[in-house]
Amino acid sequence: MKVVIVGAVAGGMSAATRLRRLGPEHEIVVFERGSEVSYANCGLPYHVGGVIPDRRDLLLQTPQSLRARFDLDVRVRSEVVAIDRQAQTVRVRDLDAGTEYLETWDRLVLSPGAAPFVPDLPGIERALTLRSVADADRLTALLREKRPATAVVVGGGFIGLETAENLHRHGLQVTVVELDSQVLAPIDPELAALVHAELRRHGVGLVLGAGVAKVLPDTVELSDGQVLPADLVVLAIGVRPETRLATQAGLDLGPRGGIAVDESMRTSDPHIYAVGDAVEKTDRLDGSSIPVPLANTANRQGRLVADVIAGRPARLTGRIGTAVVRVFDLTVAVTGWNEKRLRAAGRVHQAVHTHPLSHAGYYPGAVPMSLKVLFDPESGAILGAQGVGGEGVDKRIDVLAVALRAGLSAEDLADLELAYAPQYGSAKDPVNMLGYIAENIRTGMTRTVQWHEITDRVAAGAHLLDVRTAAEHAAGCIPGSLNIPVDDLPGRLADLPDGELIVYCQLGMRGHTATSLLTGTGHRVANLDGGYRTWSVATAELAPMLVGRSVAGT
Amino acid sequence: MKVVIVGAVAGGMSAATRLRRLGPEHEIVVFERGSEVSYANCGLPYHVGGVIPDRRDLLLQTPQSLRARFDLDVRVRSEVVAIDRQAQTVRVRDLDAGTEYLETWDRLVLSPGAAPFVPDLPGIERALTLRSVADADRLTALLREKRPATAVVVGGGFIGLETAENLHRHGLQVTVVELDSQVLAPIDPELAALVHAELRRHGVGLVLGAGVAKVLPDTVELSDGQVLPADLVVLAIGVRPETRLATQAGLDLGPRGGIAVDESMRTSDPHIYAVGDAVEKTDRLDGSSIPVPLANTANRQGRLVADVIAGRPARLTGRIGTAVVRVFDLTVAVTGWNEKRLRAAGRVHQAVHTHPLSHAGYYPGAVPMSLKVLFDPESGAILGAQGVGGEGVDKRIDVLAVALRAGLSAEDLADLELAYAPQYGSAKDPVNMLGYIAENIRTGMTRTVQWHEITDRVAAGAHLLDVRTAAEHAAGCIPGSLNIPVDDLPGRLADLPDGELIVYCQLGMRGHTATSLLTGTGHRVANLDGGYRTWSVATAELAPMLVGRSVAGT
Repeated sequence: MKVVIVGAVAGGMSAATRLRRLGPEHEIVVFERGSEVSYANCGLPYHVGGVIPDRRDLLLQTPQSLRARFDLDVRVRSEVVAIDRQAQTVRVRDLDAGTEYLETWDRLVLSPGAAPFVPDLPGIERALTLRSVADADRLTALLREKRPATAVVVGGGFIGLETAENLHRHGLQVTVVELDSQVLAPIDPELAALVHAELRRHGVGLVLGAGVAKVLPDTVELSDGQVLPADLVVLAIGVRPETRLATQAGLDLGPRGGIAVDESMRTSDPHIYAVGDAVEKTDRLDGSSIPVPLANTANRQGRLVADVIAGRPARLTGRIGTAVVRVFDLTVAVTGWNEKRLRAAGRVHQAVHTHPLSHAGYYPGAVPMSLKVLFDPESGAILGAQGVGGEGVDKRIDVLAVALRAGLSAEDLADLELAYAPQYGSAKDPVNMLGYIAENIRTGMTRTVQWHEITDRVAAGAHLLDVRTAAEHAAGCIPGSLNIPVDDLPGRLADLPDGELIVYCQLGMRGHTATSLLTGTGHRVANLDGGYRTWSVATAELAPMLVGRSVAGT
Repeated sequence: MKVVIVGAVAGGMSAATRLRRLGPEHEIVVFERGSEVSYANCGLPYHVGGVIPDRRDLLLQTPQSLRARFDLDVRVRSEVVAIDRQAQTVRVRDLDAGTEYLETWDRLVLSPGAAPFVPDLPGIERALTLRSVADADRLTALLREKRPATAVVVGGGFIGLETAENLHRHGLQVTVVELDSQVLAPIDPELAALVHAELRRHGVGLVLGAGVAKVLPDTVELSDGQVLPADLVVLAIGVRPETRLATQAGLDLGPRGGIAVDESMRTSDPHIYAVGDAVEKTDRLDGSSIPVPLANTANRQGRLVADVIAGRPARLTGRIGTAVVRVFDLTVAVTGWNEKRLRAAGRVHQAVHTHPLSHAGYYPGAVPMSLKVLFDPESGAILGAQGVGGEGVDKRIDVLAVALRAGLSAEDLADLELAYAPQYGSAKDPVNMLGYIAENIRTGMTRTVQWHEITDRVAAGAHLLDVRTAAEHAAGCIPGSLNIPVDDLPGRLADLPDGELIVYCQLGMRGHTATSLLTGTGHRVANLDGGYRTWSVATAELAPMLVGRSVAGT
């Protein structure tokens, strides 16, 4: 059987090599429009920044190495421009020779990827993108030859922030412009606020809630009229699935504009498959169509489509979309749904915020992180998790991703046996603590209040009780709160006002203790989830907009 | 209700504070024989080594702080010397005053911990142990005052190796003496061999397969007659549950010598509970009794027993025993069963060895690790996993521990969505790769051979085929192997001998490719699991003894 694969990066190359490992019988031809195959897409920003100085390190294979080891016929600079489904052929343009020819196929695998979205704006031709090795070469050449001093990165997503950090490494004054009120859409605003602070701490400018109106020769003009210096402009406002070929061939697209495939990666034509960033995936939680443009999912699909073509049983299960990005000294990781999406979908959910240390506090080098887990308060099912901080964030999100995927409940997290030694975690690991808190909430032992609910609750007559020390209180508190340190509380019950009490401490632990101690005293009590730290970070820049939203609806 | 708790470290203190958080109604009295409560046991070796210079950092609470915050009556230097079950009292000795008194209880919780095992040997009085703050103080004082130049650490378990490393930090010439043929019994010998190399690389002496015969004034004489210089002797040959009180009170012990408890931590007396290192736990895999002397399990049990006493539904599920230890630059982590135990129990199992990098190879700083996973070849159930290497070993073992606990199969590992960016992992994460390999084996696509099976297979007529480059082959190979680099293989099929072929490469990947390419050529082919690296590490020191065992039985 002759299998033709369009696209020689993650999904396409995984399909090709897996198919060969499954047997010598297939003829396998791979077409790649670019000059490189199987390159490390995710390394491009770091090559630009000089972290990966040698460009060759990004090139994991060559057509020659693939021919030698896997007997693959890989043709670069070869663009598939049309598919004839009836005749089972593709029309291929040799980009160097300028000629075209037909190639037959028995099975066709499309892995065309996605392209950076470029909006139609005046002057946009000057803006660069960063998706391919050719893009990285252009950007690197420009940095070397023009020595730009200022840059605007449009878009505060994963690639945007990685690019901003790497331009900053070259000494450029960089400003990130993001239309939304926060960077990194997959996480919720109170965690994104930590990333905002990190960018500013490193001298990266950040403009939120504004888009680009025009690109001028040395500047960028924003939708709010601001003009930013910009010797260099990089666009990173997301990617769009490459569906031109599929559309021309009459294959079905999905509701999100990607190529529609079934669990076996089969398109609406039973002889044509598609994998990678160009196709829509199924969300594990609600079965909806989602993009998930991630290299690991592309690799997984590529391997799987080879199995399917070889007649092995294989199907892709729903995706939860785990991801991680480094932003200067922070690690930001996420799995499953965030609260914004749960709220928009009207799904009942409970959030828990904690601020644990990466490892035992008594062992040197422990650094803080902020974790948030979302679960269904009725079933206990884990719906999503996110973390921002130093060392160990990726580990906790990976653990939570497996728990989510395996269908463990939030309380089950309490009983996970995780590797503990003081360099690696705590005897009660941050993930165990999330489970303990979830169990306290689900069994009704503790009631919690979220940071964005404070304004409404106080307006409705609740009193704020700060159980931190007097010194902590003096250094910053929620306006209008009474301060009684937790250890003084038993002796000062008479000082408490009537009505609902919202207790808070710095991180949530002492607040939990105080809340427990006050249970049975006749007060209606709730603990501020995530403590003053979550509240203060979240409200510092988000309060105006989000408290407004809370009043309107939540 | 009056609850008396014996022991104020992990299990006891977790029980006390949780019980108070559940309500103000109980009177809670905690007796502690030592001078300190709630101290960081796991930090003791690092305090001795000066990594945690301030002793106060190890003391997480004081009786005063516990009284203030949790209204706990904690009495240190107070040893419970007898239990009267009929009268529901304990007899308490005030170690400072030298007096004794009775204290009544409605519920009694025993958390006496475990004590270092001290064998009855000539001169043993000179040997120190490292279990309590008092032990650490003694060791620290001796290091300061006597300035010893040499030390023998008896026992190559977790505490023994941590102690050896920390004595080495003080400049002592340290030798570890271990009766078994390997250190760190929870891992298998071919991974322990990496730890042996790490110890030797740092100049720590290692004597395996020998015990201590006598402790002399400046030396230690071993069972094999060797005499080692030893200004200092530290005993770390394991702990024994503290069961004196329980035995005296007539409570049942389990088959492993610990206090027997049910899922609710109840002993054979319905009003007496026990938690922590003194009690036996249930193995999740086969339901047998196991010790699991780990701080996180003690904490978990302490919290749980408080829930039970307060009338909340709670039960402890079977343990899988995840653990981690740092040995110089190596992280060693393990979860579930190892192969030695599976073999001894006669359980059918399949091992997979890999040697992945901590993160994408093209991003700077990637370091290698060795992972091993064990699964049931019939059901696919994960039975255990272990890892030795640099950064990221703890993360992979935690992920595998959750997968094991959640009942995922080895193939399910292929589909886990783990956080990927080049600083954190690979687009095919090491855990995904384990899943891919397991799936290849379970579906019959690939056959593998283990390092310890080579001798037998060659004796039975199999031929060894090294598919690495000529340079790699020349630098070291399995004796008697033919070298045909994988990329030359298709053109050199005629050079292959008849009969079974055992293919190997450096790490296992090229071997897998070669094995796949040779399928269909009529050869019976198997790939050496873990490649030359696993074989060479394992056989370098283990071959004489283990290949011998292999011939005899495996």
